[in-house]
Amino acid sequence: MQYQFNVQGMTCGHCERAVVHAVREVDTDALVKVDLATAQVTVDSEKSREAIANAIREEGYQVAA
Amino acid sequence: MQYQFNVQGMTCGHCERAVVHAVREVDTDALVKVDLATAQVTVDSEKSREAIANAIREEGYQVAA
Repeated sequence: MQYQFNVQGMTCGHCERAVVHAVREVDTDALVKVDLATAQVTVDSEKSREAIANAIREEGYQVAA
Repeated sequence: MQYQFNVQGMTCGHCERAVVHAVREVDTDALVKVDLATAQVTVDSEKSREAIANAIREEGYQVAA
């Protein structure tokens, strides 16, 4: 499945990597694309949308419902 | 010596840690304090001011002369 998230709080390349790593912790095979300028995170994963969103939240970023 | 730097480009806690680590790479014993809100970095080190400033610049941040 491909999911699109609006993620608030990402300010720099470190944040981008932190989000990518957080998603990969719940799904090693996930494809993650981060667009800092638009705060959009695109994830291709077999896991649930909620599982991905929670991983990003636990990293300290806000994910729109 | 204690040095005070104005460092532009630090946006989050990751940046704070990146700057601290960069300084510690040139001086393991350096004491580094970062104030994100004011963009001030305070460093206690036996190394030269220029060596510390360059380490921060190489990490990708702008240091006022």
